[in-house]
Parts: sequence; structure tokens; C-alpha cells
Amino acid sequence: MSLHIQPMSDQACLIVHGPDQPGIVAAVTALITRNKGNIVTLDQYTDDPVGGAFFQRVVFQRPDFAVAMPDIEADLDKTLSPLGLEWTLTDQSIPKRMAIMVSTSDHCLLELLWRHRRGELPVTIPMVISNHTNTAEDVRSFGVPFFHVPSQGPDKSAAEAEILKLLQGNVDFVVLARYMQILSDDFLAKVGVPVINIHHSFLPAFIGAAPYRKAHERGVKLIGATSHYVTKDLDEGPIIEQDVARVTHAHSAADLAKRGAYVERAVLSRAVEWHAQDRVIRHGNHTIVF
Amino acid sequence: MSLHIQPMSDQACLIVHGPDQPGIVAAVTALITRNKGNIVTLDQYTDDPVGGAFFQRVVFQRPDFAVAMPDIEADLDKTLSPLGLEWTLTDQSIPKRMAIMVSTSDHCLLELLWRHRRGELPVTIPMVISNHTNTAEDVRSFGVPFFHVPSQGPDKSAAEAEILKLLQGNVDFVVLARYMQILSDDFLAKVGVPVINIHHSFLPAFIGAAPYRKAHERGVKLIGATSHYVTKDLDEGPIIEQDVARVTHAHSAADLAKRGAYVERAVLSRAVEWHAQDRVIRHGNHTIVF
Amino acid sequence: MSLHIQPMSDQACLIVHGPDQPGIVAAVTALITRNKGNIVTLDQYTDDPVGGAFFQRVVFQRPDFAVAMPDIEADLDKTLSPLGLEWTLTDQSIPKRMAIMVSTSDHCLLELLWRHRRGELPVTIPMVISNHTNTAEDVRSFGVPFFHVPSQGPDKSAAEAEILKLLQGNVDFVVLARYMQILSDDFLAKVGVPVINIHHSFLPAFIGAAPYRKAHERGVKLIGATSHYVTKDLDEGPIIEQDVARVTHAHSAADLAKRGAYVERAVLSRAVEWHAQDRVIRHGNHTIVF
Amino acid sequence: MSLHIQPMSDQACLIVHGPDQPGIVAAVTALITRNKGNIVTLDQYTDDPVGGAFFQRVVFQRPDFAVAMPDIEADLDKTLSPLGLEWTLTDQSIPKRMAIMVSTSDHCLLELLWRHRRGELPVTIPMVISNHTNTAEDVRSFGVPFFHVPSQGPDKSAAEAEILKLLQGNVDFVVLARYMQILSDDFLAKVGVPVINIHHSFLPAFIGAAPYRKAHERGVKLIGATSHYVTKDLDEGPIIEQDVARVTHAHSAADLAKRGAYVERAVLSRAVEWHAQDRVIRHGNHTIVF
Repeated sequence: MSLHIQPMSDQACLIVHGPDQPGIVAAVTALITRNKGNIVTLDQYTDDPVGGAFFQRVVFQRPDFAVAMPDIEADLDKTLSPLGLEWTLTDQSIPKRMAIMVSTSDHCLLELLWRHRRGELPVTIPMVISNHTNTAEDVRSFGVPFFHVPSQGPDKSAAEAEILKLLQGNVDFVVLARYMQILSDDFLAKVGVPVINIHHSFLPAFIGAAPYRKAHERGVKLIGATSHYVTKDLDEGPIIEQDVARVTHAHSAADLAKRGAYVERAVLSRAVEWHAQDRVIRHGNHTIVF
Repeated sequence: MSLHIQPMSDQACLIVHGPDQPGIVAAVTALITRNKGNIVTLDQYTDDPVGGAFFQRVVFQRPDFAVAMPDIEADLDKTLSPLGLEWTLTDQSIPKRMAIMVSTSDHCLLELLWRHRRGELPVTIPMVISNHTNTAEDVRSFGVPFFHVPSQGPDKSAAEAEILKLLQGNVDFVVLARYMQILSDDFLAKVGVPVINIHHSFLPAFIGAAPYRKAHERGVKLIGATSHYVTKDLDEGPIIEQDVARVTHAHSAADLAKRGAYVERAVLSRAVEWHAQDRVIRHGNHTIVF
Repeated sequence: MSLHIQPMSDQACLIVHGPDQPGIVAAVTALITRNKGNIVTLDQYTDDPVGGAFFQRVVFQRPDFAVAMPDIEADLDKTLSPLGLEWTLTDQSIPKRMAIMVSTSDHCLLELLWRHRRGELPVTIPMVISNHTNTAEDVRSFGVPFFHVPSQGPDKSAAEAEILKLLQGNVDFVVLARYMQILSDDFLAKVGVPVINIHHSFLPAFIGAAPYRKAHERGVKLIGATSHYVTKDLDEGPIIEQDVARVTHAHSAADLAKRGAYVERAVLSRAVEWHAQDRVIRHGNHTIVF
Repeated sequence: MSLHIQPMSDQACLIVHGPDQPGIVAAVTALITRNKGNIVTLDQYTDDPVGGAFFQRVVFQRPDFAVAMPDIEADLDKTLSPLGLEWTLTDQSIPKRMAIMVSTSDHCLLELLWRHRRGELPVTIPMVISNHTNTAEDVRSFGVPFFHVPSQGPDKSAAEAEILKLLQGNVDFVVLARYMQILSDDFLAKVGVPVINIHHSFLPAFIGAAPYRKAHERGVKLIGATSHYVTKDLDEGPIIEQDVARVTHAHSAADLAKRGAYVERAVLSRAVEWHAQDRVIRHGNHTIVF
């Protein structure tokens, strides 16, 4: 799934979804062809052949795409709107702008910064925001701005307002890379971009705080991590990716946390990569990952 | 972990557990040596170096073990009782007697029967009990007796009494290989032998009925299975083994059930093998698996 | 990948491959639409965006497909031949006919028979052929004909001739489910249908005989199995599927073989399922698996 | 296996190996008890119950171990030498000194530096040596000395002499974290400490150079990495750890290398951790990993 991860010039991604009906794939592919696009990859899925929802992702190459984009958008509007279909067209040569929010644990943060430096994440990182300062030096050594926004006491509204001011207009999505403060509904309503979280358990097992302690108490033989979009319902948002690691009776709760850190950074990295590549479509409380 | 799975003549397994204290391993190994035993494998574990619980499993060879067993037991009693340690000594040449209870799904049942026929489970299978009849012919083709005990209506007491009559005195443990009736507390109190269940989810996620449907609704990216000892608290007993398989948005709830069947049969088989080899020690609501 | 595994009436599978060029996907999907087909799934792949080879698999529903098939084939011929593309159109309501050849080991054989009985393999099984007799009773208990063709001595030509007589005209592909005789080039030339093998190692490691013994000698920490199409070059044919299992220093070569059996049956079953669903396209010494 | 990874004061590790015979475990545990040690973990293994080789690892706590060590060594010598057993006793409070050698790829190097900073590797890192300079700044940001030793042309003897001068007396083992120069037999003879390598394939598949290219050509469905001790026979030394990742036809050779990097860093890290904890015993061309 991680192919073609570098921003490609003259490459576009089209997402189409809506009520399933015969001929959508043919209509979309004909549209791309008549607009001089050449299909690179095409994925489609219908959740129910009878009366279900249809999802399609097409990546195509088109010389001078930036110039042709408005014409293609007009054609899409004319062709797909009568069918009740929604669509999004993105220019793959423009990387998404990703903010990272973090508390004290650095394992997810450093993994994202390092993968980005290796050219494996098609994003820019305009800022890292933390309610602590311990990661500042590491972040800046990657050439990324670091902003410290303390968040103490029960009232988070001042801190959230400061964070919103930093984010707004500057980022296309936010990643909570072990940010240990709960964001208010008000913040989520105002931020206006997708927020991706990493939860340190195999959701829905061990919802809430201290999942490794709970996993140890329950005596599980596998621990997991889950990356999901953040919604108002804590730990209940659409799941993007999950994975697990094997543990035994001999692991303490602290051992589970140490081992789990490696699962967390891998799961969050994959979720971020797929989101940045427009591979993830939200549908109700589910995701389609192409 | 699956080594030496055939019943071995003149081979014994000693389990020791109790409060940790210096010198237990030395005391136990000296005891085995002075009783002419030769240690084949030794595993030990302490859950807390300070004031914790100690667990040890030793397999040893001893010529004419059956004759020497009473003397060794007397020595164990004399040596370990003053230290407050409990112990169990078993003759590995005598396979445990395992009953299988099943409803209509045959995947776990056939896997156990087939592994047994291959000589990979050190047990005998005196009976399969089912509340349905569809598996009768398959079971008998393996040379194993099949008993049909219907269980309809809300009152299961007559069926449970009939099952108890079949089991008592005849088996050393019971395996619920997708037996879809809930056993009463009364049954569990009377059966007097360990009961192992396979639950078709990654516990504690999706406790209760219809876990694959719930997993599909939640949009998980992995499904799992859990084998555990049955206790009065449904789906809450000590976990022996767990595993998972990867799924995608494209799998229906029925697809999850199909794919999950392969996880279930593997997880249950490993749990049964380890139990039959005296590798699993229960401690509170946990297991130590050596 | 294992979705829609039951033969579906009025469902067809179209495979297209050949030199990549702009507009193929649009041309194919337009063709299906004008022939009243509704696309269920579509996968495509190009091995090189510049001058590479193009591969596409489309499953579509079309009322009265059996009647319309000749017209669709004529349209395909007219549309795709000028582009230098090859195509295959199959009626998914007609299961492929699969012969199984086996020696003494029953684990792969029984797994295939059992998955078939569960309705998980879209095939019919007109025969099992073995150079031994130990599996005859099991095979016939599944309602499948069993033929014994002994193969002793260095000259296999008489045995191969007898096998060819049984197979020809009666099967669409052959599965070697641990058949331990090497088939001659002459046999492979004459059999005229794909032959799928399971090799008990992670190819290309441990090519040839006794791979588990070699793996044990080398001290590997993982063992594997590989399913591949059989070609004249022993153990060198296109790989369909591979998987591994973890082992330790404590496993003997016999333990590796026992543990490996579970990997073999899973890998071969997946390869057979995907082949039967027309998901596997051969290209040189590679496979594209959609 | 990764428990108790921090250097522990007053904790010792005893490795015993040699010809198997009855009573070794009892003799060793009695010795530890009479020397006031308390066993923390004990692992043992015999490769053949009849005339095989015996291996044991015991970690024990002993107040004032550093003071008592000579007495315990004398007792070990007196007790085990008559039995023909070899032994090594190490003070777990003294971390091993690890040199890292690297060329241009940073993924294994940074993973080791980062795990060390997290306190997850019980080593000190007195130096990183590279035949390139691109990683110098990163290495020094971790507070680790970096030495540049260019190695051009066919004659490596000057470079190897310079490396030996840096290493000798200063390190307990060397890790080749994607060091792309072949070390001479002479170097290996002189270095006098274990050298651990990461090979970017599932050995023995794809021995030698460019394994990802070869894997792509062969069309494998899994790629792997292998960490092993370096011996005179290139890619033939005792394997410590291996792992794999799933790939498809859609991955280019470059994609395999990218994905493989994540397997390499995990496999090498585990091998290094286990070696540093005295968990790995070499025996012929195999390892026993406790």
C-alpha cells in the first residue's frame, strides 16, 4: 500500500463516493480519459451490492494538471452530481501540512519526524505543539518549529485557544502522537481539519486511561495499538489501523508499555501515511482504506 | 513450546508454586537428583522478586517412575510443605482424558480430532458430547464415541445432569469446542475438572454473543480468538492463549466469521496441547504458560 | 481477498493483460457497461508506468450472462485485439475442476477436502490420485473418488501415462498436495493445465529435498512454505503465496516438520483459493495476485 | 524475553555448557545457594537427551556480588571443571561496551542509538565508526563519538588497521549496522570480540549482494532480515534472529528495500539486546537463545 509515496508532479487523486448504481466506474474512467488523464491505480468498493454505498479512489497522471484542474472539476460536477455522488480531487504534487501534538513520550513523534526526513511521508510538518518541553531540542534538530503550550489545571480553554490560533489556516490535519490531554468538543468543532490519534490498546478493549495496566490485570497474551480519527466520543472514532504484539505472563505492566511503544509508532505511522495519500475514506464510524 | 508432545514412559512433570523465597530451585532440583531423576526441562517464574509468588515446572526422567512415585511424593511432602509450597506430580506416560463438547460448528472439533490422530495431542478422547447431531458421523469415523444430549428450552438442568453423568469419573478435562450453550454455575461446581473454552473474539473486546457482528460494526482491522478456562463469570476466566488475523473494510460479518474460524481452531488447539502437557498454571485470574 | 468465494450465477470474471497504454481501464469499463454488466470489483496494476505491462481483473454481474457471453467475447475481440491486449472471460457460476495428487502425508489433502466441504473453495474435486493407499478411506469419506497409481523404480513413464489418462479432459488444474514424486518435463508438457505445488520451505531457501533437515542444520529462527506453479525448473516456478512460522533452537528437525505442516496447509489452501477465483495472473516467472 | 533489561546491581549471569549428564542443574543451583545467591531466572536446554550438549543460563541476585565474585568463580572452577563443563560468570551491573560500524544507511544506527537513549539496551556506546560522514551529526547529537575511517580501493588493510586501533581494548562487541564493506579474515581474527551483522534477507535465501533486487526478481511474497555473528564464511555465521514482512507484486525492488529497512532495524535491535544480556550461546554454527 505504500507505493508512490513521494509527491508526484502532474498526478491527481480523485475520491468518489455515494449511492451505488450501475456504470459509475465506467463514467468516472471515461471522464478521466476525455480529460487526458492516464490511470495509475484504481480501487473501488461497494458495501452492499443492493442499495449500498459506493467508494472509489483513482490516481491518474495528467500533463499540466494544475492548469487543467478547474476544467476537470467542472466536468466532475456536471457528470457526478446528477448521480448523487460526492467527490474530492486533490493535486498529489502538493503535500498535506501536518501538525504533531505530543506530551512527554517521544517514540511516536520521533518515528514520524524520522520517516518524514527519509522521504517516506508525503507531508510538510509546519509545527510540533507540546504541553511539555522535553522534546523541543529533538524536534528542532529536524528543522521543525516547536511550540510549547502548557495545559495545567481543569480549565483547558486558554490552552486550546492558543493551540487553535497556531493551527488555523496553517495545517491540513493534526496528529496526536501520544498527546495525553483530552481535547474538548469545542476544540474539535473549531479545528476544522481531521485529527488522528494513537490509542495504546487494541480498541475496543481497554478503552480509557491506563490500558497497559488494565491489559496486565486481565492477563492478555497480546497487546495492541489503534490509530483512529478523533470524534466527540472518546476512543470511539473510526479506526484506521491496528496491530498487536505477543506478550507473556512474565511481562510487567511496564514491560507491556515498553513493548507496546513499538506497536504504537508503527501503527500511527501507517495511518498517517495512508491519510496523507488520500487512501482513507470515512463512512459513518468506519473507514475504507484503499 | 510443542516439544516432546508424545506421552513418554518414565517421564514425570512436577509443578511447584507458592510464596517465593531463596533456595526453592536448589531444593527442588536436589530432591529430583536424590530420587534418581534427570532433569529434561525446567522453567520457573516469580511474579514479584519481593514477596511475590513462585512457579516452577520441571520435567524429569526417572527409570521405573511408576514404582518410585510414592517415595518421591513423600519426599516432596516432607521437603516442600514446611516452605508453604503446593506441588503436583504427574506421570507423563498417562495421557489426560479429554471430553469435547460441541454444537453445530465443526472446525474446532475436527481440528482437535485430527491433531489427536496425528499423535500431536497427548490425550485420549473418551467422548464427544453435542446438543446437535450433525457431527456424529465425522466423530465416529475417528473412532471416538459420540453422545447426543439435546438442550432446548430455558431449563438446562436435565441436559446438564445427563452430561455430568457422562463426564464424571471418565475425563480429566473438558473442552468447549464452540459449544453454544451457557453452562450453569451449578454445572461448573459439580463437574470437578478444568473446562477450557474458545471465545470468538480478542477478549476483553466483544464480550458476550455475536462478537463477529460487533467487530464488523466497530470497523476493526484485526479479528481474534481467545481460549480461556471457564469460570462463573462469563468470558472472564483466565486466558490461556490468543491470536488475531488481519481483516479489511471489504469483509462482511460473515467473512469475519469464516476467517475467524481458522484463528479459533489454532488458538484452541494450542491451549489444549499446553494444558495436556501441564504447561499452564492458574493463578488468580491469570495463567502462567511455560 | 477471500470475498465472494461461492460460485455466483450471472457473474463473470474478465482478465486483461498486455502492453500498458492510456485509456485501457476506460475502454474495458465502457465495454462492460455497454454489455449491461455491473462492475463488482476491479483491480489493475502496471509493472512500469513507462512501457510496462498492464494487468486488470474485473468481476461483473450481468443478467443471463451465459446467453450474452458470445456477444461479449466478440466485443472484447473487436475492442482489445487492436490494442495488442490478451483477455480471458470466465463464467463464475462454473467451478473449476481440481485434481489432487498426494503421497503419504495427509495434512494438505485433508485441509483442501475439508475447506471444500465447508463451501470455501469454488471448485469441484473429481479425483484424488496417490502413489500410496493410506489416504483412500479418508478421501472417499468426503465423497471424492480415489485412484491409486503406484510409482516405483526409476522409470515413471508408465505411472505418468496412467495419471495423464485419468486427468485429461476431466480437470482444469492439478494440485500437488505433498506429492513426493518429481514429474517429468514430458508429463508437464502433456498435462495441459496449471499444476500447483506446495514446497516445504521458504523458497528460494532450501531448494530440493529434505528442507526441514537443512533448515535445522542452518539454525534458522523461522521456517516457511511456498506454493508455486510447477515448471520444468524444479522449485523455480512462479510463487503464488508464502508464509512462515517462528521456531527456536529447541526444535528438532522432526519438530520443524510438524510445525511446518500447519504453514503448508494454510499456504497451499490460499494459493488454491486464489487460483480457483482467477485472482492469479502469471507473467514470466512472477505472479500478480489480485 | 526483554525483561530486566537495565543493568542491575548485585545481579550476575552464569552461563554453563558442555556434555550433558545427570545432576548438572542440581549441582549448579546448589552452588548458587551455598554462595548466598537467589535465582531470578533459569533456562536450560539439551540438544540430545543421549550424549548431547547441555546449556544453562542462570541469573541470580547476590548482595555484594562484586566482592564475592572471586570466591564464586573458585567454586565454579572446582565444581564444574571435573564435569568437563565450561562456564562464564558476568556482573550484570557492568554494561557491555558496543561499537557500531555503519556506511550511509542510517535506519539501523539510529534505532540502536535511540533505544539506548530510552534505556532499553544495557550497553555503553563508546564509538560509531563509518566509512562515510553523512551520519556524523546525528551520532554526535546523541552524545556518542563518531570516527570517520574511509575505505576506498581494493586494499582495505590500512582502513582495517585504523579501525582495529580504535576498537582494541575499548569494546566488548561490534555491531555492523549496515556496514557495506566486507571485513577480511585477518580483521576478524584480530578484533577478538564478537561481531554482529544484519543481513537484508531471510538467510540462506539471497546470500551475497543486492538481496532485495534478487528477491524482486524471484517474485517472493515475503521479504526478511537476518542478524548473525560474523565468521570467515560470508553470510554463513550463526543466526541470532530473523523476521519477515509481507510484500506483493506491486512492490518494486526499491519498495522492498524501504519496507525491509523496518524489518532490519527490529531484527538487529533484538539480536543486540539479547547478546548484551548474555542470552545468546554459540554452539557450532547455531545459537541457543534463552
